[in-house]
Amino acid sequence: MNKRKIFNDPVYGFVTIPNEIIYDLIQHPYVQRLRRITQLGLTHLTYPGALHTRFQHALGAMHLMTLAIEVLKSKGEKISEAEAEAACIAILLHDIGHGPFSHALEGLLLDAHHEDLSLMLMQKLNDEFGGALSLAIDIFKGDYHKKWLHELISSQLDVDRLDYLNRDSFYSGVMEGKIGYDRIIKMLKIHRGQLVVEEKGIYSIENYLVARKIMYWQVYLHKTVLAAERMLVHAITRARELYTQGKLELTSGPMKEVFSRSWYNESDQVPMMLAFTRLDDHDIIMFLKQSQYHEDTVLRYLATGLIQRRLFRVELSESEIADTYRLQVVERVAKNLALSKDVASALISEGCEVTEMYAPDQEEIRILLKNDAIVDLSGIESVFSTQRITRHYICYPKPY
Amino acid sequence: MNKRKIFNDPVYGFVTIPNEIIYDLIQHPYVQRLRRITQLGLTHLTYPGALHTRFQHALGAMHLMTLAIEVLKSKGEKISEAEAEAACIAILLHDIGHGPFSHALEGLLLDAHHEDLSLMLMQKLNDEFGGALSLAIDIFKGDYHKKWLHELISSQLDVDRLDYLNRDSFYSGVMEGKIGYDRIIKMLKIHRGQLVVEEKGIYSIENYLVARKIMYWQVYLHKTVLAAERMLVHAITRARELYTQGKLELTSGPMKEVFSRSWYNESDQVPMMLAFTRLDDHDIIMFLKQSQYHEDTVLRYLATGLIQRRLFRVELSESEIADTYRLQVVERVAKNLALSKDVASALISEGCEVTEMYAPDQEEIRILLKNDAIVDLSGIESVFSTQRITRHYICYPKPY
Amino acid sequence: MNKRKIFNDPVYGFVTIPNEIIYDLIQHPYVQRLRRITQLGLTHLTYPGALHTRFQHALGAMHLMTLAIEVLKSKGEKISEAEAEAACIAILLHDIGHGPFSHALEGLLLDAHHEDLSLMLMQKLNDEFGGALSLAIDIFKGDYHKKWLHELISSQLDVDRLDYLNRDSFYSGVMEGKIGYDRIIKMLKIHRGQLVVEEKGIYSIENYLVARKIMYWQVYLHKTVLAAERMLVHAITRARELYTQGKLELTSGPMKEVFSRSWYNESDQVPMMLAFTRLDDHDIIMFLKQSQYHEDTVLRYLATGLIQRRLFRVELSESEIADTYRLQVVERVAKNLALSKDVASALISEGCEVTEMYAPDQEEIRILLKNDAIVDLSGIESVFSTQRITRHYICYPKPY
Amino acid sequence: MNKRKIFNDPVYGFVTIPNEIIYDLIQHPYVQRLRRITQLGLTHLTYPGALHTRFQHALGAMHLMTLAIEVLKSKGEKISEAEAEAACIAILLHDIGHGPFSHALEGLLLDAHHEDLSLMLMQKLNDEFGGALSLAIDIFKGDYHKKWLHELISSQLDVDRLDYLNRDSFYSGVMEGKIGYDRIIKMLKIHRGQLVVEEKGIYSIENYLVARKIMYWQVYLHKTVLAAERMLVHAITRARELYTQGKLELTSGPMKEVFSRSWYNESDQVPMMLAFTRLDDHDIIMFLKQSQYHEDTVLRYLATGLIQRRLFRVELSESEIADTYRLQVVERVAKNLALSKDVASALISEGCEVTEMYAPDQEEIRILLKNDAIVDLSGIESVFSTQRITRHYICYPKPY
Repeated sequence: MNKRKIFNDPVYGFVTIPNEIIYDLIQHPYVQRLRRITQLGLTHLTYPGALHTRFQHALGAMHLMTLAIEVLKSKGEKISEAEAEAACIAILLHDIGHGPFSHALEGLLLDAHHEDLSLMLMQKLNDEFGGALSLAIDIFKGDYHKKWLHELISSQLDVDRLDYLNRDSFYSGVMEGKIGYDRIIKMLKIHRGQLVVEEKGIYSIENYLVARKIMYWQVYLHKTVLAAERMLVHAITRARELYTQGKLELTSGPMKEVFSRSWYNESDQVPMMLAFTRLDDHDIIMFLKQSQYHEDTVLRYLATGLIQRRLFRVELSESEIADTYRLQVVERVAKNLALSKDVASALISEGCEVTEMYAPDQEEIRILLKNDAIVDLSGIESVFSTQRITRHYICYPKPY
Repeated sequence: MNKRKIFNDPVYGFVTIPNEIIYDLIQHPYVQRLRRITQLGLTHLTYPGALHTRFQHALGAMHLMTLAIEVLKSKGEKISEAEAEAACIAILLHDIGHGPFSHALEGLLLDAHHEDLSLMLMQKLNDEFGGALSLAIDIFKGDYHKKWLHELISSQLDVDRLDYLNRDSFYSGVMEGKIGYDRIIKMLKIHRGQLVVEEKGIYSIENYLVARKIMYWQVYLHKTVLAAERMLVHAITRARELYTQGKLELTSGPMKEVFSRSWYNESDQVPMMLAFTRLDDHDIIMFLKQSQYHEDTVLRYLATGLIQRRLFRVELSESEIADTYRLQVVERVAKNLALSKDVASALISEGCEVTEMYAPDQEEIRILLKNDAIVDLSGIESVFSTQRITRHYICYPKPY
Repeated sequence: MNKRKIFNDPVYGFVTIPNEIIYDLIQHPYVQRLRRITQLGLTHLTYPGALHTRFQHALGAMHLMTLAIEVLKSKGEKISEAEAEAACIAILLHDIGHGPFSHALEGLLLDAHHEDLSLMLMQKLNDEFGGALSLAIDIFKGDYHKKWLHELISSQLDVDRLDYLNRDSFYSGVMEGKIGYDRIIKMLKIHRGQLVVEEKGIYSIENYLVARKIMYWQVYLHKTVLAAERMLVHAITRARELYTQGKLELTSGPMKEVFSRSWYNESDQVPMMLAFTRLDDHDIIMFLKQSQYHEDTVLRYLATGLIQRRLFRVELSESEIADTYRLQVVERVAKNLALSKDVASALISEGCEVTEMYAPDQEEIRILLKNDAIVDLSGIESVFSTQRITRHYICYPKPY
Repeated sequence: MNKRKIFNDPVYGFVTIPNEIIYDLIQHPYVQRLRRITQLGLTHLTYPGALHTRFQHALGAMHLMTLAIEVLKSKGEKISEAEAEAACIAILLHDIGHGPFSHALEGLLLDAHHEDLSLMLMQKLNDEFGGALSLAIDIFKGDYHKKWLHELISSQLDVDRLDYLNRDSFYSGVMEGKIGYDRIIKMLKIHRGQLVVEEKGIYSIENYLVARKIMYWQVYLHKTVLAAERMLVHAITRARELYTQGKLELTSGPMKEVFSRSWYNESDQVPMMLAFTRLDDHDIIMFLKQSQYHEDTVLRYLATGLIQRRLFRVELSESEIADTYRLQVVERVAKNLALSKDVASALISEGCEVTEMYAPDQEEIRILLKNDAIVDLSGIESVFSTQRITRHYICYPKPY
């Protein structure tokens, strides 16, 4: 059987499966499940094209990994077949632990970070594949001695980010978020064991950082997207409460499982994991569709709003939301929608979003100068000013 | 409130909502539901990017309609505001009667054609909107005296096809299917009451017909897509049987409704329609996910195969499938999968697909020559040979 | 005769000629001459695709003008047919005064700025066209009372820049320079008589300013491009000296004209202008090709280097080039190439390039906030830091 | 010195120079000269973007060669470093023998075919490079035992065609001519020593053949392009006559050389070749610019028309142009333009253009079926009908 399959990818044209084990992994239900998890959750309510999945992202990131490895090899870096394969496996599986709606519900269904879940699932796959994923897991965890292989998977310049910025920009149609991923990859180099960018690539890096900032404020933190995600979080939180109180019937088996157990009970973790691997966006959307007719006002309100796209209003502010203002909003909502203040309160949420264009204190981007010195990006004269943007928000139902 | 909203569209860049009533229609749950119906059903199992929805297609076709109207006006055609608005409404709503997975399940859940359902729903909306859709409905039905307005919605060169070919090619990543929609639109003209293409556009038309043929054989009738759709049809058919026999519990309310009633009972039509407007891809996928654990072997086999993407094999043939061959396949499947011959038979299907590059006997493409004569496309010397391609197929489970 | 011609444009797809007078102007030899003047001079020696002409740019900028006018009209701005036509004419002709190699030789053949020459030629055309360009000229000069029409032609956000950034990025293949011209145009508005950008467009503006900076340093001031342009300037300067001394024969009539006269003699201006309208890139390149065999070492060296693409080395520095360093370079060049120090000196040049990301003191970009206030872009919190980048350079022959 | 240079290419993004000798060849004046020869001659008078050069095409075709070799290697074909390098050299230099305006003037300045001139120049380069091009020359001539290496350079599916169709479509803006070059290359295979296409690539091949036909009729044989090229041929023919008669002074050295000698004198061939390597589009355009003021009516008329873009009219006809019609045209032109009948006759030309969509009798496209048989494309049921299109034309001055 021919396992050198080629996928058509609207973003890169073609993505070639580099070898058999990758092919077999893609066939596995854990990876196939990613076909049913959208990359950007409810973003499509604002950008109708943003329906791409974690599956597409996993293939895309793997494609960029093969390009990066090719470039590094062409610059004289020794990379064994086994290392190349392991790096591809690690990036293919890096998001396997994402649940429904990716980040929006992170930590809410299972109280665990998706990277930890990814690792657990990779270990389970390693058992199934007779240890063939061991090196991939070492690289994923950062335990392998060639640290730069881990950096290709997780750092300021990893192929994960390159693919998702590229792909999210493509599918949302926000072309200002487009990055020169191919040029950035061509400028990568390993220098004294570290992943660096050659000096002549700094404008591509600048473009990348600005594009990323634009994607944050124009897409990821877009007010309507934020509103939808807050509504979803409220709906799931409310559902768990109602379910615990015996006031909600669920039709999704895996949802029942994760609602009935606690990640903090060690004995619950295995069954929760198994349920998790059967859980995807469809469980949540069917739950919302059915909840449009539920007797609880709050749940019904949220579910109907999400399905019919009548979304909350979001107000952004540079300073914290004052308590007095919050009270005003509660009263206004209660009055407008003829709800009790308790219900109104339950619908309203607050929070804070912070983005930083480039934060060298956390993770640096290393530039290799022509004189062979390495400087941090922020050391390049007058190119970047670190910009931290903070926005507080309050989110509440509009009167219709 | 500003209703001149702009949508980002990866295909066209931007789509502008031309006026208030269009905005209000888009907000209606009937149109919002199209966000949950993929344009190409299960095609994404072969082309992972093909996840775009009927909602995007509706907006895109409306966008092309505004372009076409602008072009025709610039060539001196008188088109009133009301006509332009009605044409936009008609195209926006032309697919509102599509059910889950669009064509794949057409006629299977409700025994009605999607265009009739679209019309019924448009009439319902017309009531809600106080008669504001009357002209749109006339145009949609072909009752309006300017027949070319109907031709823009439904003919060999309608904006429906221009958008879907364009969009399906874009999202599947099959760039050979890309068409020069903008050039074709710029070449449109009304000549003696008929929609025609100016002579200098014939190469764009040829490119369009070939691209269409390629999309048929490379995407719409791709063997794996065909397999997945046949499996889905089998699964739904089996589900209805089991449900009728009391052997299947359904969690989707609207599925229960449509399975419990018959479109041939006139009194059932209204409740079926209402259920239909609550039915979308998610009901079907959740049904499949749950059916992976059902006791009926056939249903379980089909559901698991679709969810885990273990799809049937399709064999194509220019001649009809011989009975003897069919029997061989049944035996082989029964043996390989350790099934009874009855079950094996129930999993196997046959059929026939026909495409024609250009069928002037059905609907012609009129070319306006420089000397002002109109000829049918097939009358242009040696450009087109009508090609009818017929493929019989047999579709059956692979051994894994 | 049909004058509603459509041009194919790789950048925008199609450019439609909006009316007859524009058609007739495009046919005029003054505009046709722009077909023989590249937009980016010698940039193609580094970016082989950058061969696009002032003619394409003129059409492209006109296209964006029609889009901008359409957007402003759709937002309720009254713009008469005559105003729209005049704005299109003004932008079509805004670069008509550019000479061979555009900016590279600006002021060197004729001691005049290209905008003044554009105005002179527009006035000449106005005579030929019986005064039909009067309003266009008023707008071009900024004399028309609707100042924002002039701002569309010349300001921080004019369609000139939008087209050239877009086009230069497209043809050079530096996709980091791509801008969201369509989104920026859709965000334009006239507010109290001023051209402004709506607040939701600020990320597109930020993207635009960064893209512009990238185009400056990656393309316009690319070291090799800078080297080639310095060589060209030297070659022309040397040619004028030799011609004046009777040591150079020229075969280009218009070159003889402009070398024999002085722009400071008022009586010379008319014949110089006429010669100028016959001068284009080809005169210069043929001069260089022929000068490869000239007896003057300096001219021969420069001409051969340009034709065979053996270009000078450029060194950039944040501080001024020290005199001692310059002397070292002269000696090194003299020794390496076996030239006298005089000749070596004549080949070496120095200079300084400055770019500023956004200089609100010179020309501002006005943002229209949602509360209807107008602020300068730099007033938007933490978005932009004004960045002035200065680079001194020294440019000298490499040893081959 | 780093010779692994990367070129930005608007068509492919990046083109990487694969090794040192290729780098050195690109630096050679013979290859640099291709920067001054446009790929499509005067086509830009109709498609203003079509200004790309033979230099870009040479790099692009070389890029596709590296892709093709990579694909074939990945399918198990053994290709040595030396073979890969030679194939790249051969394709890089395959058009080095093209003269000014490529095909338009082919055989007119030198009575030799460009492929023969390419070979002569490659042999000269082989001397300069100490025999390093011997294998490349063998492949180019078809003398190397692996015939498919030659087929990659010259056959129905060579990378030459793939690049030029792709590139010409890109720069002309005729997107209907776009081909899926990447998919076609991915479908190439060597089967029993022959270059074949895998069966699943047939729709890409069909798209390619139709795109090619469209490019022929929409671009290469576009009426205005044909007119311009006929005018150029007339102008050069007239120039040679006048020069021979001592009635024309030429300023271009190489033009004088080729006009003074004859390719049929063997002793003239070397000096003609040397002149030829100094001849490019600029010599011809300068000659036209200067000829606008020449005393010969015919030459002046043609030169002015070409420079000011007042082009001839072309009439196409399926049958031959009748003698009587020709006489009528002569009379009409003579009268309209107040010319003698002799002069009018000298301006008028006739000819015939033939294209064939696919001519298996000349060169076949071999399809590798899944059962390992090879069939000619035309053997695939009902896909292709061989279409030969013939057009006679007559070309004459319009009255202005």
